[in-house]
Amino acid sequence: MAFVVDRAFEAASVPAADWPLCHVRLQDDARFPWLVLIPRRAGLVELIDLRVEEGAQLWVEIARASGLIRVLGEHAGLPVEKLNVATLGNVTRQLHVHVVGRRADDPLWPDPVWGRPGREPWPSGARAALLRLAAAP
Amino acid sequence: MAFVVDRAFEAASVPAADWPLCHVRLQDDARFPWLVLIPRRAGLVELIDLRVEEGAQLWVEIARASGLIRVLGEHAGLPVEKLNVATLGNVTRQLHVHVVGRRADDPLWPDPVWGRPGREPWPSGARAALLRLAAAP
Repeated sequence: MAFVVDRAFEAASVPAADWPLCHVRLQDDARFPWLVLIPRRAGLVELIDLRVEEGAQLWVEIARASGLIRVLGEHAGLPVEKLNVATLGNVTRQLHVHVVGRRADDPLWPDPVWGRPGREPWPSGARAALLRLAAAP
Repeated sequence: MAFVVDRAFEAASVPAADWPLCHVRLQDDARFPWLVLIPRRAGLVELIDLRVEEGAQLWVEIARASGLIRVLGEHAGLPVEKLNVATLGNVTRQLHVHVVGRRADDPLWPDPVWGRPGREPWPSGARAALLRLAAAP
C-alpha cells in the first residue's frame, strides 16, 4: 500500500516540505504559525503504530518544526509564546502531528485551535514567503 | 531547583504512578480515560526543553501510557477508539503531556477535551480501581 496524503488535508493546508519521515504542510490560517507533519508511511493512525526508529525520527522532526514555527511566527509578526504539539485524528484518521505557535493575544487563547471556526487564509504573498522559509534546508 | 508538581494539577487530577521520567496523574473525569505525564525535571516548559535522552524516554512513556489508557478504558466501560496525545500548556506552563482515550460516542467527540466544561469526577470506587491498574508494574 503506497503512502498518499489524505485529501482532507487539502481543504485547509498547503504542501510545505518533505522531510526524511514526514510530509510537512502549512496550515492556511493567518491567525497562527501552524505546521502539520504527516509521516509518509501508509496505514498509520496512532503514534504507537510507528516503528521505534520512526518514532525517534518523528521526535527529531517535531523539534525541527518547533524551531521553524518560531521562525515563521517572527516573520509573520506572530511571535510564538507557547508551542502546542498534538496528535488527535478524531476527524482525519491518517496519523498527523500539529505544531502550532500560540500567543496570549491570539484569537483562541488559551483554548485549543482544533474544531473551532474562524480560519483566515494567508494573503498569497505572505503564504509564499512562509513556504519559502519552510522549504529552506 | 527541585522538581515540584504544579499545584494547578491538583484541582482536576490525582497521582497515579511515578515512571522513570514522568510523574503520572489520572485526570479525575469519568467521561474519558485520561492520563497526564509530567517529566520530573524542574523548569521544563516545551518538549524541546528536554534533553535527547529524556525525549527518547518520554516517547517510551507515551507509548506505555497509550497502552495503559486502553486498559483503563476497557475496565471503565469506555473502550478507546482513538488516542489523543498533546502538550499544550497554555494554562499550566509546567511541561505535561495528555494521553486521552476518545470514542465516537464520548460527550465532546470529535472536539478536543481541553478548555471545555463538564468534568465529572470518578466515583471513588471506580477511581481506586483505575489507580490500582495504573500502579501495576
